[in-house]
Amino acid sequence: MKQRVALLVQYKGSNYSGWQIQDNANTVEEELEKALSKLCQEKIKLTGCSRTDAGVHALAHVSHFDTSFKMPYVRMSLALKPLLPDDIAVLKSRAVSQDFNARFSTKGKQYSYYIYNSSKENVFIKPYVYEESRDLDLEAMQKACTYFIGEHDFRTFMATGSSAKTTVRTIYDLNIDYVRPGLLRLKIKGNAFLYNMVRIIAGTILYVGLGKIQLEDIPKIIASKDRTKAGKTLAAKGLFLDKVFYDDNPFAECYNSDK
Amino acid sequence: MKQRVALLVQYKGSNYSGWQIQDNANTVEEELEKALSKLCQEKIKLTGCSRTDAGVHALAHVSHFDTSFKMPYVRMSLALKPLLPDDIAVLKSRAVSQDFNARFSTKGKQYSYYIYNSSKENVFIKPYVYEESRDLDLEAMQKACTYFIGEHDFRTFMATGSSAKTTVRTIYDLNIDYVRPGLLRLKIKGNAFLYNMVRIIAGTILYVGLGKIQLEDIPKIIASKDRTKAGKTLAAKGLFLDKVFYDDNPFAECYNSDK
Repeated sequence: MKQRVALLVQYKGSNYSGWQIQDNANTVEEELEKALSKLCQEKIKLTGCSRTDAGVHALAHVSHFDTSFKMPYVRMSLALKPLLPDDIAVLKSRAVSQDFNARFSTKGKQYSYYIYNSSKENVFIKPYVYEESRDLDLEAMQKACTYFIGEHDFRTFMATGSSAKTTVRTIYDLNIDYVRPGLLRLKIKGNAFLYNMVRIIAGTILYVGLGKIQLEDIPKIIASKDRTKAGKTLAAKGLFLDKVFYDDNPFAECYNSDK
Repeated sequence: MKQRVALLVQYKGSNYSGWQIQDNANTVEEELEKALSKLCQEKIKLTGCSRTDAGVHALAHVSHFDTSFKMPYVRMSLALKPLLPDDIAVLKSRAVSQDFNARFSTKGKQYSYYIYNSSKENVFIKPYVYEESRDLDLEAMQKACTYFIGEHDFRTFMATGSSAKTTVRTIYDLNIDYVRPGLLRLKIKGNAFLYNMVRIIAGTILYVGLGKIQLEDIPKIIASKDRTKAGKTLAAKGLFLDKVFYDDNPFAECYNSDK
């Protein structure tokens, strides 16, 4: 009987072609599976809560796998440390029941998109932000956020070419504010997200801030189901997967703070 | 008649073998000289305030060069942007008199050394800190700092093998404190520094925090002039060159804040 183990993983996405394994590309999943297979001395296949795109970062990505290897599973995170590159860390590991599925048990996710709104160059923040030095109308951006909250057909905010059974999604919360001078954080919480949805919504809100899209046009843009009406898809490097929600979250204690 | 131009440069040192040009190595100076030579359409040779070691970062490194190229020199920083990699930025550029020498006019420097004192892994902070998860005696570390302030022979804190005419240096200020939970910053200001001096002092103060070196032994360790009595040389990646001081600083307006 194999044991199911869940992992809470943090990674800097800059040097990866996203989460999901693919040929001829460096991926987070591949690095983790290599490390786990070495540790467990058997071939390990992970199931992740979400594929993240190339360049996207994660503060707390959740995945699971099954193994015959026996050890105190909470100590697996420590045992994996020497087997992983510096930009991937297993923060927590825990034995879970076979009922838990990192992908299908998901109840929602929270992402943050960071915009560096300053004319001062900063090489240290660059890998984590979209840079926009022009003045932004924060109040208009904050009002724009409110239009997205609730259940909507978000087809307008889906990358062209992607296929989804339904494009209806629910956004529980969306807001934007400066977390420190010059650094804007757009925080979005929803039940699920279409391909590139957060980055297109972030681009649309940015366009409101720049006056390229009028606040009062947002409802029409949502209703249009026309990708070309929305703002541009902001760069992957500004996007962070903050949290994944489950009814019975194996890492609930890590989610106390409202970050 | 050539014009002397001073640059204020920020860089993330992770991917460089330090500031100074050398064969078969990627250096900050080389990247800048390549970009400047392209812009000025002549071979440019920089003089830097300081060679930083491989992996060391700089918030505000100062350098100068002479050029026959004519342009509004304050706009050179902007013109260089597309010619430089993402981890090097020229924050400011300015025409200066031939009396200014980025290296020989230096009156002092300020460095910071960051210690990540937490058991929580953090892949985002890792390239900028030394990681020490054990409990540290902050009060002892703070007291240890006071012994270093003033004019001393700092031979104990010089990497073996380096040659310096004199090993007497003056430290104007040295202190350590948490800048946020889990992140310690050692700030040191002095007239000049021996090779690896900041990293060895940081290692010695860390050893005091860990109880490996007793506070009251610090004066003896300084007086010993024996490298083996001090703490270890902490990793380059935790070190930042914060500021360079000049009597007539071309970038004085950037130095207002006491960071």
